[in-house]
Amino acid sequence: MKPVTLKDLAKQLGLSVTTVSKALKGYPDVSEKTRELVKSLADELNYVPNSFAVGLRKQQSKTIGVIIPAMVHYFFSNILDAILKEAENRDYMVIIMQSNEDYELEKKQVDLLLNKGVDGMLISLSNHTRDFKHLQKIIDYEIPLVLFDKIAKLVDCSKVIIDDRKAAYDAVSYLIKKGYKRIAHFRGDLNPQNSIDRFLGYKKALLDHNIEFDPSLVYLCNSNSDFSEGYSNAEKLMQDHGDNVDALFTVNDLLAIGAINYFNKKNIKIPEQIALIGFSNWFMASVVTPSLSSIEQNAYNMGTKAVEILFNEIDAKLNDTAIEHQKITIDTELVLRNSC
Amino acid sequence: MKPVTLKDLAKQLGLSVTTVSKALKGYPDVSEKTRELVKSLADELNYVPNSFAVGLRKQQSKTIGVIIPAMVHYFFSNILDAILKEAENRDYMVIIMQSNEDYELEKKQVDLLLNKGVDGMLISLSNHTRDFKHLQKIIDYEIPLVLFDKIAKLVDCSKVIIDDRKAAYDAVSYLIKKGYKRIAHFRGDLNPQNSIDRFLGYKKALLDHNIEFDPSLVYLCNSNSDFSEGYSNAEKLMQDHGDNVDALFTVNDLLAIGAINYFNKKNIKIPEQIALIGFSNWFMASVVTPSLSSIEQNAYNMGTKAVEILFNEIDAKLNDTAIEHQKITIDTELVLRNSC
Repeated sequence: MKPVTLKDLAKQLGLSVTTVSKALKGYPDVSEKTRELVKSLADELNYVPNSFAVGLRKQQSKTIGVIIPAMVHYFFSNILDAILKEAENRDYMVIIMQSNEDYELEKKQVDLLLNKGVDGMLISLSNHTRDFKHLQKIIDYEIPLVLFDKIAKLVDCSKVIIDDRKAAYDAVSYLIKKGYKRIAHFRGDLNPQNSIDRFLGYKKALLDHNIEFDPSLVYLCNSNSDFSEGYSNAEKLMQDHGDNVDALFTVNDLLAIGAINYFNKKNIKIPEQIALIGFSNWFMASVVTPSLSSIEQNAYNMGTKAVEILFNEIDAKLNDTAIEHQKITIDTELVLRNSC
Repeated sequence: MKPVTLKDLAKQLGLSVTTVSKALKGYPDVSEKTRELVKSLADELNYVPNSFAVGLRKQQSKTIGVIIPAMVHYFFSNILDAILKEAENRDYMVIIMQSNEDYELEKKQVDLLLNKGVDGMLISLSNHTRDFKHLQKIIDYEIPLVLFDKIAKLVDCSKVIIDDRKAAYDAVSYLIKKGYKRIAHFRGDLNPQNSIDRFLGYKKALLDHNIEFDPSLVYLCNSNSDFSEGYSNAEKLMQDHGDNVDALFTVNDLLAIGAINYFNKKNIKIPEQIALIGFSNWFMASVVTPSLSSIEQNAYNMGTKAVEILFNEIDAKLNDTAIEHQKITIDTELVLRNSC
């Protein structure tokens, strides 16, 4: 039989997990009535605190699991860099898995990490993850979980993200203030939240500045073959709109760099004929000609914050103290270079 | 007391570990006399085959450890990509650690992985590793070990490398055949073997084509701050040699791209005034202007080969069969673009 969890108690009582946890530990900020209620249900269902049941201190694996969609990605290698350094400081080991944007694989990897007995997990979801039972399983097992970058809003755990909508809004507003009016957008896949949010930020910036949103200026890009898609979509953009487009905002830097290559080849002047802003501020953005303006996502900070929260939750679990899940938004900034 | 290992037996008898292993298993390609000799010493010293002693099949951790010098590096993220995919195929987990080019940290990480009971290790050494006792320890524990890219020639284990000297020789010979005569070299740190070998390949190409080696054309670069060092050394190169240099071969692409940025800024025409060839063929090489000729190291193949050999050695250990260590050289190729 699956052990009764804090979550089971919380559900039956219609309370939050945090309240139930605090109640069981006798925290004074939970009313005595609630404390009694929680304790009697815990007795009834034979709830055993995780740390009692398994002598947790000894059972610590000193290992955390990380699942990312892709390894060969400047953004994720910066995040991993931060995670590895922080884990190193704490003598923790890190098992890294890549889901290759495959939901089934991600699900399997969660099971592998659960079986391995990791002390906590950091996950950035694949673009095709639309069902979150595997994440719920982690929570049911009371394994600390922090989602980062590609998250699921509905899952009850800590999250570290950037404000994609605001970052896109800032970039497009900057272009508008510089006098650009016909601004195209190379958007990402339809599913992932950050691709949706960047599109919505683009659209809102247009509307807030009284520029008509023209859907024919939006090109859908599949996120896997970025560079050549940037090139071919730039070609399409010129065929479709020619002189009737003056700026381009792309969902990532690779698409922008592909577009730059096309414009350079066709002697279309950047930023005179078309201005560009990318997203992610890959190292490459600073070395292409012209250098590319882009949004710095501060991946290293995101990795550091995510792993810090995870270790706090692991410590809290060890010390049997209640935790509040956090939702942290990492600041982004628009880095201006020669492309706009 | 430390258990007696195959290596102890081999040392006492003046035989190779492979011969001892084969002798104990009764392989017919070892003479009967040697077999007797080995078996009697094994009895005397109470040698217990690892697989008997600990019921290895059950004890398998299905985990391998990987130590690399740096995560944020296109070369290593491609290698990790290959390792993770192959491990995934075998339901293995991968613990990744980065030494940050720190020998003490690398040593500590080896101990952590040994304590964790990993089934095998893949290591690319830090630039500052000059003592190999920590690697010998892995071998003494009979944990399969494969070194890749940055290896130690003297350590008795399997290795996967590229032929850095030949690759550099090919690049510089190409420049000479194209008519360039005053070829500068931005070399890497003094210690790591691949930096030494690339320098030696450069030098040999000059000598073989009767071009005098001029040490003042060689600039030493510390491998950590590549890009800006490429820029500043290009500046120095022009101050020192001006028109009396016509080509540049760099130990990596980042230095070349830094140099390209300087030359572009100063309107020094590439390849008319100075031709360039880099090393590593980072994705960036194809997107800078002008695009950079470079040496493709086939990192993904290197990762695949290294992890394949490791799994073969893990399997051999499980099945108690002897292994011969392999030394594999991955082919490189000179990718020509607009910089030369």
